[in-house]
Amino acid sequence: MSTHTGIDSLDKLVQQIEEQQLIAPLWPEGSGITALDQTKLPFEQVSLHIQTAAEMAQAIKKMQIRGSGAIGCAGALGAYLAVRNQSQTAEEWPNLVQPLREARPTAVALQLAVDEVLTAARHAKEPVEAAAKAAAAFVVRQLEMERAIGRHGAEVIPDGATVLTHCHSGALAGAGYGGRALSVIRAAAEAGKNIKVIAQETRPYFQGARITAWELRQLGLPVTLITDGMSGAMMESNRVDVCVVGSDRLAINGDLANKVGTYLVALAAREHNVPFYTATTRYNVDPACASGKDIPIELRPGDEVLKINNQPITVAGVEALYPAFDITPAALLTGIVTEGGLFKAPFEAKLRDLMAQEWKSA
Amino acid sequence: MSTHTGIDSLDKLVQQIEEQQLIAPLWPEGSGITALDQTKLPFEQVSLHIQTAAEMAQAIKKMQIRGSGAIGCAGALGAYLAVRNQSQTAEEWPNLVQPLREARPTAVALQLAVDEVLTAARHAKEPVEAAAKAAAAFVVRQLEMERAIGRHGAEVIPDGATVLTHCHSGALAGAGYGGRALSVIRAAAEAGKNIKVIAQETRPYFQGARITAWELRQLGLPVTLITDGMSGAMMESNRVDVCVVGSDRLAINGDLANKVGTYLVALAAREHNVPFYTATTRYNVDPACASGKDIPIELRPGDEVLKINNQPITVAGVEALYPAFDITPAALLTGIVTEGGLFKAPFEAKLRDLMAQEWKSA
Repeated sequence: MSTHTGIDSLDKLVQQIEEQQLIAPLWPEGSGITALDQTKLPFEQVSLHIQTAAEMAQAIKKMQIRGSGAIGCAGALGAYLAVRNQSQTAEEWPNLVQPLREARPTAVALQLAVDEVLTAARHAKEPVEAAAKAAAAFVVRQLEMERAIGRHGAEVIPDGATVLTHCHSGALAGAGYGGRALSVIRAAAEAGKNIKVIAQETRPYFQGARITAWELRQLGLPVTLITDGMSGAMMESNRVDVCVVGSDRLAINGDLANKVGTYLVALAAREHNVPFYTATTRYNVDPACASGKDIPIELRPGDEVLKINNQPITVAGVEALYPAFDITPAALLTGIVTEGGLFKAPFEAKLRDLMAQEWKSA
Repeated sequence: MSTHTGIDSLDKLVQQIEEQQLIAPLWPEGSGITALDQTKLPFEQVSLHIQTAAEMAQAIKKMQIRGSGAIGCAGALGAYLAVRNQSQTAEEWPNLVQPLREARPTAVALQLAVDEVLTAARHAKEPVEAAAKAAAAFVVRQLEMERAIGRHGAEVIPDGATVLTHCHSGALAGAGYGGRALSVIRAAAEAGKNIKVIAQETRPYFQGARITAWELRQLGLPVTLITDGMSGAMMESNRVDVCVVGSDRLAINGDLANKVGTYLVALAAREHNVPFYTATTRYNVDPACASGKDIPIELRPGDEVLKINNQPITVAGVEALYPAFDITPAALLTGIVTEGGLFKAPFEAKLRDLMAQEWKSA
């Protein structure tokens, strides 16, 4: 990591990342943004050097940068790149950032972040500095929110608990502390509780096996990997005390879009009276969605199911479907952990309050 | 395939397999039993040549022969090998078949089959012929039962239906027609109905991707592959009309042990009012189990989750759990398709009746 970006707000951000033992998904470096290629982790640590908003959009599309918090940060820093590259022609910015805004349809934080940075730049005398400052502020706010989610969520994790999680909602899916779900687990462990984690592998991308398990081992926590079909068996054998997952998008009533497979965990948890929480920030709440029915579900190429490491897992002539998310109805949630506190049902008024408030640093 | 086993009952069995367009998991050949190595399918067709009960036990343990019907047939033919190899010393048979009886703890048909063949041999003047005849009869009965399951089950599959199935409960998991779940699908298609299938890949062994999808393509049916976390998403988007799965063991109350992941499908099906059936034979019913709580769940090595094609999917230091089965409570079943008819709840008396009756060929 180099702090020589030449822009004060970005240099300060890099300094913070270095000082706080963060596992950052991306950071300013030199004249661009460096990101860890999450499709290569944990077996290879490959860095991407991103210079344009279009390249940032590509990295998101290819899931090299993934997880809603990280996607938000990528949106903010990508919008900064658009402004920097076209600092004289503000009317070009919307076109430049359009592929970025649309890189993943279900990640609402992405559009918020892009728009926030462009708005700051548009009203500034020094648009590049303003965009950099707004982007850095977005990332710092994301970090503070992750720590706040950790504080509120740790309360519901008993000492000695085994926590089941699905997909990856951790540091690399956020700004570097623990994202959302893993902020809860990290904060519980940092509070001195004895915590074990069951991580679902999360087919077809194995985010749970590759990234969640890796991050948890970085934190020194014991991790047991299971397949996505095993949560029911785990609960039938009383192996799970609490479930915590992230949220790619939350409808205002609390219905939750998260990585496909989440809904099944929630159904099993209800059946076995295991508490089921989602951890989320205001950026994951979409007030335009009254319920889960309004959340668009991204259908990714079926080929991503049919091959592992480019090797087919079945014969020719077999089709596949890959809805990236499923909807977990709010009725299945024990609570929603946010940076503003732990919310119990009914959720709508509390989520609206959260969104109406400005974030205040602790 | 060669019909020259030198034993009339086995030669007739081979003839039947050849004439009926079966996809047989194993068959008598020459001086032994030939089996398709199901761990290699569908990319390689490797045959195993089995000469002893111990080798048969190994093939079951290694899941080269798998699926409760096929395991039953393997038990019958394996017991025949034990008798043939020690035809003079009947007191040795129990020791010889003990590893076979114990090769998979949850497959009750295995023990039934072994005991049936040994009992026939023990009371015969020509124990080898008697064992061969009993083993062949076991396989033929399995085939007849598969066709009967198909007839009864096809009734509940509407024309135009998309059927979701988990794991592999097909011809290679039976004697060669369609096992249990795929007998229902095959019979519905053979009755002229337009049927599509959604097959779950079934981690960690990919039986759904490798074997179910392959068998269905052999039958010319359209197959869509999904991961084990996607059944909820499929039902939320109204893509599933009916679920049909097999059953590794059924408690007498109808509680069902089947490949891990089945329970989650059943929970999602109930939530979305999608009918959920299991297809089973009397050999899968265990009257010693009053409920699912009495069914032992095989814990297989976690390493089978941690690696795919010998490549790790996560980092060192991560543990794994692999319960091979989960329990689907009878309350989640719309019905049980058996060779004796389609049963609705309450199941116990009907299952007891089924087991009390002798199988009669149609």
